[in-house]
Order: sequence, then structure tokens, then C-alpha cells
Amino acid sequence: MSFSAIDHLHMAQALRLAERGLYTTQPNPRVGCVIAQGGEPVGSGWHRRAGGPHAEVFALREAGERARGATAYVTLEPCAHHGRTPPCADALVAAGVARVVIAAEDPFPAVAGRGIARLRAAGIAVETGLMREAARELNLGFFSRFERGRPFVRVKLAMSLDGRTALGNGESKWITGAAARADVQRWRARSSAILTGIGTVLADDPRLTLRPADFRGAFVASEMGDAAPGLADVETPPGAIVQPLRVVLDGRLRTPDGSHVLDGSVPTLIFHDETVRPDGRFARVSCEPVPGHDGRLDLSAVLARLAAHACNEVQVEAGARLSGAWLEAGLVDEILLYVAPTFLGDAARPLFVLPPLTDMSARRPLRWLDRRMIGEDVRLRLRPGAAADEAGPRDPA
Amino acid sequence: MSFSAIDHLHMAQALRLAERGLYTTQPNPRVGCVIAQGGEPVGSGWHRRAGGPHAEVFALREAGERARGATAYVTLEPCAHHGRTPPCADALVAAGVARVVIAAEDPFPAVAGRGIARLRAAGIAVETGLMREAARELNLGFFSRFERGRPFVRVKLAMSLDGRTALGNGESKWITGAAARADVQRWRARSSAILTGIGTVLADDPRLTLRPADFRGAFVASEMGDAAPGLADVETPPGAIVQPLRVVLDGRLRTPDGSHVLDGSVPTLIFHDETVRPDGRFARVSCEPVPGHDGRLDLSAVLARLAAHACNEVQVEAGARLSGAWLEAGLVDEILLYVAPTFLGDAARPLFVLPPLTDMSARRPLRWLDRRMIGEDVRLRLRPGAAADEAGPRDPA
Repeated sequence: MSFSAIDHLHMAQALRLAERGLYTTQPNPRVGCVIAQGGEPVGSGWHRRAGGPHAEVFALREAGERARGATAYVTLEPCAHHGRTPPCADALVAAGVARVVIAAEDPFPAVAGRGIARLRAAGIAVETGLMREAARELNLGFFSRFERGRPFVRVKLAMSLDGRTALGNGESKWITGAAARADVQRWRARSSAILTGIGTVLADDPRLTLRPADFRGAFVASEMGDAAPGLADVETPPGAIVQPLRVVLDGRLRTPDGSHVLDGSVPTLIFHDETVRPDGRFARVSCEPVPGHDGRLDLSAVLARLAAHACNEVQVEAGARLSGAWLEAGLVDEILLYVAPTFLGDAARPLFVLPPLTDMSARRPLRWLDRRMIGEDVRLRLRPGAAADEAGPRDPA
Repeated sequence: MSFSAIDHLHMAQALRLAERGLYTTQPNPRVGCVIAQGGEPVGSGWHRRAGGPHAEVFALREAGERARGATAYVTLEPCAHHGRTPPCADALVAAGVARVVIAAEDPFPAVAGRGIARLRAAGIAVETGLMREAARELNLGFFSRFERGRPFVRVKLAMSLDGRTALGNGESKWITGAAARADVQRWRARSSAILTGIGTVLADDPRLTLRPADFRGAFVASEMGDAAPGLADVETPPGAIVQPLRVVLDGRLRTPDGSHVLDGSVPTLIFHDETVRPDGRFARVSCEPVPGHDGRLDLSAVLARLAAHACNEVQVEAGARLSGAWLEAGLVDEILLYVAPTFLGDAARPLFVLPPLTDMSARRPLRWLDRRMIGEDVRLRLRPGAAADEAGPRDPA
């Protein structure tokens, strides 16, 4: 399949529109749509919130009669089922669209190819795969949930240059600067859930909520990076951001009465093992038992439950032990690491508790996604897996 | 003092020329010179090696009669003393130069202002300070030696993302990739000395030499960064590179017979404490006692001795204990840190052994110099001190 420069232009715009829903569509995917007559866009839209109109509906409304004979560019396969809104595939057919270009096929079982089939049955030319990778990246949690049956797991950590997260005495506040902390809010806001462990609850009594006061600086810039034009003036209204589910792994239900995570201020889910039952402390939150052993919960089971709760992206903000356990279980999809320009020394707390390696060849490689300054700190993003060859040969000799 | 755009152009070129001596002028400074008639360069040169002609001599030779009435741009104050070559200030006077623009004043006691005085006494207009910071940066070790009485100390380290330099069992080979290791050769080559401790000698038996096979890839690029044009095709001939002094801190003279550092293949200096005397093992190297206590040598005394040995930049390549001791003593001027995209876990070796901090406010801030990819690894460079305000306010609220 070969696409024209005009096709790329419109699809790129549809992706930028989709991105505007980054913080608001949960649990739905972020989707954008552009309807064009040749090079001229005649309608565009993006999905704003679950239960609201889909991207295609906004675009068709704007295009009106000019949708007839036009091409529709959609970042995700149009829906074919009656959910809270009527099927978009039918709306495209009714509007007389001649051609539909789709970036990524919808993995949602009720759609999965049926949207495409319905369009083709109506005689519409359908082409798929234009900028598929970018469209999948924008909804990586959504795809993970339906393709792997579990959310995408991002582990967020903040450390000194020598890989330390807190002093030996536990003091951990303010390792990184205010800009990095505001950036963390941005990653929380795109997540369906923020997950921590009982160790962090006992040590730090965290709130794990979005703080609207931190939003304004953090959310004006586009998630796609500095290079995306036209979005700098689009700010997500803080009220539209879906507050992520607060999740605590607390095998033995040791969360103390009065902890912030029990205050009921945001939806909260406590996973515990099957040997204990929640008491009155947990009146304002949900508690669910999951299998575990030796006081450690089965992390795969936790993820399966979070998928059942419609979680797409889960952000882990935990200590060295739980972060290490996720890594050790091979369930980490992304590392989001803030590095502060200071040293804390070997007596300070490590980044990960991991079983000792005995051989360098046993270490697991990661590949770089992104490195940039956030205020005075460096932010590193990595994913598991060996580096692609794009970096060129490693040996200059 | 205000300089014209033409002045900046010629001085920038003189700095680029000076940089060509980066690996070859030891113990002399790297110096470049451009002689120009207005916008037109009529002669240029750079200092290549100690004992050879100074930059001004090459430039005057090329300019010939066209030096008369010209402006000479020199990155360092012209010499006024008879060293191994006659004074450059006299040569500039004799050539009839009308104006001399100097980036940085020479801190060398035999020059220190006398070059400028001699030029002015001859009626030449002398202006100083144009691009002074860049000129000082290029010779930061040379300035440190004369202004502070000690070399510039760069601590090189390689670690995993979680700040670990080796496995718990000591295995440390190949944490970083071949490109990073070649880059380390480049930093060694610009150093006057490479320093390690007895711990590293006992554990790894390092050679601490320049390996010509690694040069070709590493030395074609300009030290000033990717942006410097015109130098990509200038490669320092490996034979011209001055082999850095090999330095081992070995308080009790425990270096085993047969260690690479004792092989006499390059000039080597072993510092030990005053309680021991070298035996036959040390026949091919120099040994010098320095004060110490509890088996640890006084690092300030070590630096004073290295300055006396005409060392400008010293690169420390040591383990967590000695690297931490330099940091703790406040004697580290730069951190050169390679970060490999993997995790080794908390059982692996730490970056620095440091006394425990009890309060976050006690940590020492560093400021970023540079962050870049070297192959698949990230290279971070930092210096002590709080960040400048140029990064903007840290709190976006």
C-alpha cells in the first residue's frame, strides 16, 4: 500500500488532534479524524471523553455536505457497534464518504475488523496502516489491554546520579526539582492508574493524585515533544482530566488508618492477598484479593485485574523492592527515570532491589526512547529490549 | 572593550586552530593564532608540541610581509621569555603588527602580563578578553596548574542506569559499549595523567595507556563538539599524541610484581606513604612518598606533586572508594560519566563510597555541562556548583 504526501499530511493532523484527548478519554482510546477533499480539509475532530461523540462525528458535523465523495482519515478503525454512541462506520457510509484511510486497526473485540468490513460492504475504499506505529504509540495502553490482556506498565523513578532514591534514613523529598515533579503529573494524568506498594505508603504516606495546581505549566506542551506545532495554545482544562485510579499493593492490609490513600478523595483500589479481609479502615476504598505467596502478590494477577478495571496505562511509583519485583517479573514496559545532578553515596537507598547477577551476560538490555532536560534534572525513558540497529555499529574501529 | 564581528570571526578561527593541539602540546597550553588584514586572514598557525614553534611563529611565517599593519589574534597572551623558543611578543613587534587581540592572559609566571607589556611598549594596540572563557576552557588544566597550584581533576566512571559499576563478584568488563570505550581514550589522550588506586590495580590489573588502535575513530571529531566545522578531516597522528603519565596511589606499595602498571611501557609514577620504601618490583617506574594517614594518601599533596610534574588535566579512573574519596575531599572538578542502558541491581558495586548523608540539604549540587549519546550509552558531564540561572525558574507554577 502506498500513500501520497497529501495522505500523510492529513493523517499527521488527525494524530495531532487525537493527542488532544491524551488526558481525557480514559478508558477509551485517543482518536482523531480529518475529512478532506484532496488537499483541502473540510472537517476535523477528536474524541474528548468516554460517552461523548467519537472523532468521526465531530469531523462529519463540520464537513456537512462536503463529506460526500471525500476521504476520511481516522487514527483508529471506526467503530461498528452500538456503544454509548451509534456506530461511526454507519455515519461515514451515510455521509457518502468515498474513501477511508485508517492508521491502526481497533483491537477492541466488538470492533476488530468489523468497522472496516462494514465500510467495504458499502463500497467505500478502505486503506489501513498509514502512520500505524504513531497511532499505536498514542494508545499503547489500550492496545496492550486488548492484545495482551494487561495494561502497559510504566515505572517512574527519581534518583541521584549514583542511582539513589533516598537517604539511608529514608528522607526522599525533593530529590528532583519542581519542573520534574510537574512533569510527573503529566505522566500521571495520561495514566489510568497510579500504583504503589505498602512500603511507600508506610514510609511516605503519598497522595498519588493529580494536583491541578501543577497542571498549568505541565500541560500546555504537546506530549509528542517540542516539535509538534499548533498545540502550544491548547491546554487541557484541569476539570476534564480523568483522575487516575489509585492502586496500592498491600498483601496483609497494613495500610494505617488515616493514610491519604484511604481518604476516598479519588477512586482507590487496594489489592491484598487471600489470607486477610478488609476492616472499617477501608470503608472509602475498594479492596480485592489476588493470589500471592510469601506476602508478595502475584503481579501478573494484579495486571489482569487492572485490565478488567479498564486500565490502559499503569504508572508504578514505588520503592526499590516493589519496582525491582516488577522488573524481575519481566512486566515493565517502560522506565521513566528522572536523574538529579547530585550524588547521595553508597549508604543511600538503591533504585532497584534485584537478585544478584553473577554474569554480565545475564543483564537485560534496554533501549533508549528519549533523553531530555526537565528543569535541572535529566529525564530518561527506556523500554526493554536490545537497541535497534539505527544507532549504527557500536565499534568505531 | 567592544569587539567587532570580524574580531570574533578571527578569534573563533584561532580557537579552532588551538584545539588541533589538544592531544599533542602537553605540558604546554593549546594556542592558536590568526593574522588578518581586516576581514582577510593572511596567516594562521597553532602550537603543535612542546619545544616546537609557538602558534604566532607559524602565523607570522605564513603572513610574511603582510603582517605589517595587521591584527594578530592569539588565544593566549604571547610569551615574553626565552624558553625553548624565542619570545613571540618580540616576533610580533619585529613583524610590524599594529594590533594584537588576546583571548586570555597567560597565567605562567614567566609571562603573566609581560607579553602584553612588551607589545604595548612597542606601540602596539593590545586588547584582551575576546572569547576569554572559551580560551580558558580549552586549557583549563593549564590555568588550574598555575592559578590554583594543582591540576584539573576529571573523574571518569562507567555505570548501569541504577548507578552500579560492576557486579557484586567484581565482574566489570564491558558495562559500556565499544563507542564509549573509544571515547574514554579521547579523554585520556587530552589528559596529562591517568590516575588509579591500588584497589583497581589488584582487582583489574589495568594498563591505563592509550591504545592507538582505538584512536582512529575517536579522534577525527572535534573536541568542541559536533558543531565545529572544518576539523572533521584533521586527524591527530597517533604518534604525535603525548602518552599521559600513569599514576597509581598505592600507600603501602602493594602493587604485585608483574602488574601492567609496573611494566615500564609508559612513564609511571607510584605515590606511596612515608612508612614504606619501594623494592625491586618498582625498578621501571618512579616512586614518590607523600603524606598520608590510616593508609590513605593526602590527595591535596598528590595533586601538588602532579602539578610539579607539569600535569594539567588528571583523569581519575578508580573504584568506588578512591573516586568517593576525591569527591569527599572536594577535589573533583569534573565528572565524566558513561551510563549503559541496563540495570545491575542493588547487590552490584556502587559508584561512590561516601560517608552517609543525614540531610538532603547537605548534598552537593552539580551543574550539567553536556549530555549526549555515545553509541548506545549516554555520556554525562558535570561540574560541582549550583546551576546558573540560565535554565530558568525551577518551579513552573
